[in-house]
Amino acid sequence: MTTVSIIGGSGYGGGELLRLLLNHPQVEVRQATSRSHLGEYVYQVHPNLRKRTQLKFTDPAVLEPVDVLFLAQPHGQAQHNIEQYAALAPKIIDLAADFRLRDAADYQKWYGESHAAPAWLSKFVYGLPELHRAEIASANYVSGVGCNATASNLALLPLVRAGLIDLEAPIIIEIKVGSSESGAEGNTGSNHAERANVIRTFSAFGHRHTAEVIQELGVKDVSLTMTAVDLVRGVLATAHAKVKPGVANKDLWKAYRAVANENPFVRVVKEQRGIYRVPEPKILAGSNYADIGFELDESSGHIVSICAIDNLMKGASGTAVQCLNLMQGWDETTGLEFMGLHPL
Amino acid sequence: MTTVSIIGGSGYGGGELLRLLLNHPQVEVRQATSRSHLGEYVYQVHPNLRKRTQLKFTDPAVLEPVDVLFLAQPHGQAQHNIEQYAALAPKIIDLAADFRLRDAADYQKWYGESHAAPAWLSKFVYGLPELHRAEIASANYVSGVGCNATASNLALLPLVRAGLIDLEAPIIIEIKVGSSESGAEGNTGSNHAERANVIRTFSAFGHRHTAEVIQELGVKDVSLTMTAVDLVRGVLATAHAKVKPGVANKDLWKAYRAVANENPFVRVVKEQRGIYRVPEPKILAGSNYADIGFELDESSGHIVSICAIDNLMKGASGTAVQCLNLMQGWDETTGLEFMGLHPL
Amino acid sequence: MTTVSIIGGSGYGGGELLRLLLNHPQVEVRQATSRSHLGEYVYQVHPNLRKRTQLKFTDPAVLEPVDVLFLAQPHGQAQHNIEQYAALAPKIIDLAADFRLRDAADYQKWYGESHAAPAWLSKFVYGLPELHRAEIASANYVSGVGCNATASNLALLPLVRAGLIDLEAPIIIEIKVGSSESGAEGNTGSNHAERANVIRTFSAFGHRHTAEVIQELGVKDVSLTMTAVDLVRGVLATAHAKVKPGVANKDLWKAYRAVANENPFVRVVKEQRGIYRVPEPKILAGSNYADIGFELDESSGHIVSICAIDNLMKGASGTAVQCLNLMQGWDETTGLEFMGLHPL
Amino acid sequence: MTTVSIIGGSGYGGGELLRLLLNHPQVEVRQATSRSHLGEYVYQVHPNLRKRTQLKFTDPAVLEPVDVLFLAQPHGQAQHNIEQYAALAPKIIDLAADFRLRDAADYQKWYGESHAAPAWLSKFVYGLPELHRAEIASANYVSGVGCNATASNLALLPLVRAGLIDLEAPIIIEIKVGSSESGAEGNTGSNHAERANVIRTFSAFGHRHTAEVIQELGVKDVSLTMTAVDLVRGVLATAHAKVKPGVANKDLWKAYRAVANENPFVRVVKEQRGIYRVPEPKILAGSNYADIGFELDESSGHIVSICAIDNLMKGASGTAVQCLNLMQGWDETTGLEFMGLHPL
Repeated sequence: MTTVSIIGGSGYGGGELLRLLLNHPQVEVRQATSRSHLGEYVYQVHPNLRKRTQLKFTDPAVLEPVDVLFLAQPHGQAQHNIEQYAALAPKIIDLAADFRLRDAADYQKWYGESHAAPAWLSKFVYGLPELHRAEIASANYVSGVGCNATASNLALLPLVRAGLIDLEAPIIIEIKVGSSESGAEGNTGSNHAERANVIRTFSAFGHRHTAEVIQELGVKDVSLTMTAVDLVRGVLATAHAKVKPGVANKDLWKAYRAVANENPFVRVVKEQRGIYRVPEPKILAGSNYADIGFELDESSGHIVSICAIDNLMKGASGTAVQCLNLMQGWDETTGLEFMGLHPL
Repeated sequence: MTTVSIIGGSGYGGGELLRLLLNHPQVEVRQATSRSHLGEYVYQVHPNLRKRTQLKFTDPAVLEPVDVLFLAQPHGQAQHNIEQYAALAPKIIDLAADFRLRDAADYQKWYGESHAAPAWLSKFVYGLPELHRAEIASANYVSGVGCNATASNLALLPLVRAGLIDLEAPIIIEIKVGSSESGAEGNTGSNHAERANVIRTFSAFGHRHTAEVIQELGVKDVSLTMTAVDLVRGVLATAHAKVKPGVANKDLWKAYRAVANENPFVRVVKEQRGIYRVPEPKILAGSNYADIGFELDESSGHIVSICAIDNLMKGASGTAVQCLNLMQGWDETTGLEFMGLHPL
Repeated sequence: MTTVSIIGGSGYGGGELLRLLLNHPQVEVRQATSRSHLGEYVYQVHPNLRKRTQLKFTDPAVLEPVDVLFLAQPHGQAQHNIEQYAALAPKIIDLAADFRLRDAADYQKWYGESHAAPAWLSKFVYGLPELHRAEIASANYVSGVGCNATASNLALLPLVRAGLIDLEAPIIIEIKVGSSESGAEGNTGSNHAERANVIRTFSAFGHRHTAEVIQELGVKDVSLTMTAVDLVRGVLATAHAKVKPGVANKDLWKAYRAVANENPFVRVVKEQRGIYRVPEPKILAGSNYADIGFELDESSGHIVSICAIDNLMKGASGTAVQCLNLMQGWDETTGLEFMGLHPL
Repeated sequence: MTTVSIIGGSGYGGGELLRLLLNHPQVEVRQATSRSHLGEYVYQVHPNLRKRTQLKFTDPAVLEPVDVLFLAQPHGQAQHNIEQYAALAPKIIDLAADFRLRDAADYQKWYGESHAAPAWLSKFVYGLPELHRAEIASANYVSGVGCNATASNLALLPLVRAGLIDLEAPIIIEIKVGSSESGAEGNTGSNHAERANVIRTFSAFGHRHTAEVIQELGVKDVSLTMTAVDLVRGVLATAHAKVKPGVANKDLWKAYRAVANENPFVRVVKEQRGIYRVPEPKILAGSNYADIGFELDESSGHIVSICAIDNLMKGASGTAVQCLNLMQGWDETTGLEFMGLHPL
């Protein structure tokens, strides 16, 4: 059994990691840390784990060495302790934003502060298997992915990979998100009476995850516009781009199917009948799938490319476990078999 | 024009009062106080009031005399300042629990602390017009009503008034509530990701509003069991009781219709067809109606009596304005004409 | 009193009209028709009207003459009976799409069938007062507005009127909508278990309301992309455009404020603090307001312009009553004073 | 591998069975029938199954023999074809109500029609393992369970088994349910705009599942009152009873823990701190757990006993697979390991 511990186990990302790792046939979870819930059973914070583990939250100061260390802290913390963490485990998978960007100047630009461990940036591989499967398989240090970046990257991946869009042309991505994105801590606007029933375009430009789309796909002019809606789990990215002249529906089908064929967690959803014709996060809660689809206006070349994911799974902890599987040489889908629920 | 001010204007009850009073044809709103939002426009806190008022929140220390003072503070505050408030206005309408109970010992029992102004308890009339219309009309001091108590009291009122149930027999009231009951401040459990999708029986016994049902109806053995559901506004009380032997459906119809006929804001809802056959809070948001209905199991005498209200309207601010109308000799429905929305 | 009747009173648009007109101080509602609910009380279909009217649905065949006739039927019906309706009333306000487009060829293009009464198209004024106040005031025949078109038109109006965008340049409008848009009849996808929790981009291109944006604003290259979310009432349009070179924030403020100042139901929402910083439909349910706001990326000129409305009010019945007020020479806001609710 | 087929595979119960059985390590799914979706891929109806199976719906007339046949049809159908089904498979698990009641007279009383195959009633074991584990293990024919009956039976089981309540005394069970209970077909009231935001007490007495509580627990005077709330999956039963004189909290703890200890899918939830203190369906979606808890008013002996389940899992398909495991001698939890999601 591979031993793992989780630093920062009381947030939503940490809870989802615990759910996945406690059920993973090759893994033994040793420790999960939390300062605010020190000494409590993890099931008191993550009630779905009741009767599945007697693990209690421990102090991050008393961590023991393990095979793989997961970091599930709020952004900006791991970079200050990365040396210490590296001494505890030969392999590290971070869920936060600390090691996603390759360039310290980019970090400064998007996060508004200088990076505390810039030398470590180049040691990490960006942890999206659909983009870096081989590198992840041989990496010791893998970063997390932004949930909105992941939905955006996978919406655009077929177009970029097949060269169907011009990387210099403007791309507008409209992203709709559930409330779990804002974390277990909440904020003044996340009180149920304020957050229920919303359609709230809370960020028109400048979302930090934009940096991951630019870095990973090489697109030059992309904006993410964020709208909160009444849902707990889920992200939908609706990307607007222009295909190159002459690109037709059959080219798009080929490009999307290729990505789905190469990646066990990517599916093409494009039906002519029934209720579920397009990618939707509703049916993805708890699953690691990314559903992608598209619609082309042939007269103008305007393409709408859609990707739906569960922000806590494919957008965070699910992808982290997928990376673990790759790093350990296991089947990529181990412990990630849950199909999602319908209806929900 | 009658001048009014509101102490505690930034909570949900205060916001609803502002909405009603700013639109009231006989009223001029002079001041609304808030320490945490001092100097802000009221529409920055209550965004529905934008373009309807330029009022800013003022300090409670600089209140000027008015004809009627509304108190919309959290429970437990008004009793400490009641003398000061009484010096500012000849008439006071309190929305909190401070002056609802007639007996200081009851207050001690249900609220766990001694009352700070027990001599004032007898000066206040319990502010539910359906129970005390005439007294309210001639009162200077009127208390608020508990929202859950109001749904319970109006569910039971036809049965009690017509003598159809035994006041000594046990009554179980199951109450389902929306999230606005817990206030604008929220708490750890009200974060949207935690509060959405819940069916949470958070209190089995001992809810403080029980005291108002006992006091006002004279029932001896009544329990309120509280369940939170995914809704912002609304309370549904489902009361289980036994009717006296021989009571039949026609007696019940007569009793319920009598209450509805005497009270402009009470309606009997009991349809044999269509979607809306029973009282439901869904269609009451923003309205001052209390919808009541019943179902009798003739073989056992078990009656289920139902009342639906909007907790911020008939359960708080709407009833307070209804009391204002009575106290000032105006038509009881003035400023409370909003019908509610369908669908919503 | 002005007498009015409603043809097609059992749908959501008809119900909202009834709510508004029954409460309108200058109007007497004579008849509301419904074939499927013939003889039923209107409050059995629109439960919020209980205790407010004893009106029953009548057969459209027995309509009597009135001053103003409202048509609230499904699209495609009114054009077949317009002569008959015109014989019943000197003034007609239609809520459906039948008479929105000026050009029969446009109707053919967007609705896929030839218009049954093309000669009538030029007799109708497009019923959005923010665009055609003076014409409506002197019109006998006024068309309805598409709810998504209205949110789009009002999002773009400040930019178009002040000449801040190039009418030839591409405009992408992302629209998020609640379930009441699909009507009281529902469909296979509107079953609650399927429709709850959705973020469903059900139409990427070609929504019929696009025609109203092109016609009314003169923009040449505009697309509406429609996403259904979990809400009953509300539309949010998030429009992406490019401002002309040199346009700065102060120009935008001036343009948006001008539109708000000229129109009693338009408000600019653009706050730096608090929960409600941008236009949101959540607080607009039941109100006739259109809230508009914007965000400019100065480096690229990319502007995100937002408009929120209640689709049944400003997007349908509220605007129809606003037109009635203008046509009759009454204050434009009569009967439309409801402020909306917070929280909801 | 054990071969299974599902008759009636396009409803919600059938879809959930497919999800579970396709992932079950000991099972091979041969056929799923649907007349209305004949020839379609099952993932077109159950979109969560995409990329997991290429199965298509077949005609029930062309069923081939299998080891175990699941019946997931609407109530009232299986009894007409049971002989035919028994010829196809040595073991049958029915999810519908056809074979739940032992007494044909009870069936007549609660379902309002005579049973079409009364001789078969005694051949079926009531399929709730917490009540009949040993009998199920040796049975060939196992009935389904009503979801509301299951929540009720498990709420009361600790009290009945330990003899802590009088079986003759009245028991009132208040049940709150999500929309998936009403099935994939929907009805006029299940249109999202009508069903969202509801708290609707749609049945005060006489719910058919009551018969299963009386039959299985031997209680004599029990009523189920049903309230629909805004949720897709989930049932919460809040049962009100009186404990026998002298019963204290420690006796209750002992009784509840005993049931949880004997049953892998039962958990006691009764915390003094944190957000999740009581059983709630919110965290159970997709899991087979039944969470139980209680609160005692020691002065009166009034006990509130609570049970939360996912109506499609523990209340239907999950329990059916649990029965399969028992009947085949496999570990009871095989294929039912999913922990549920938090948050959701």
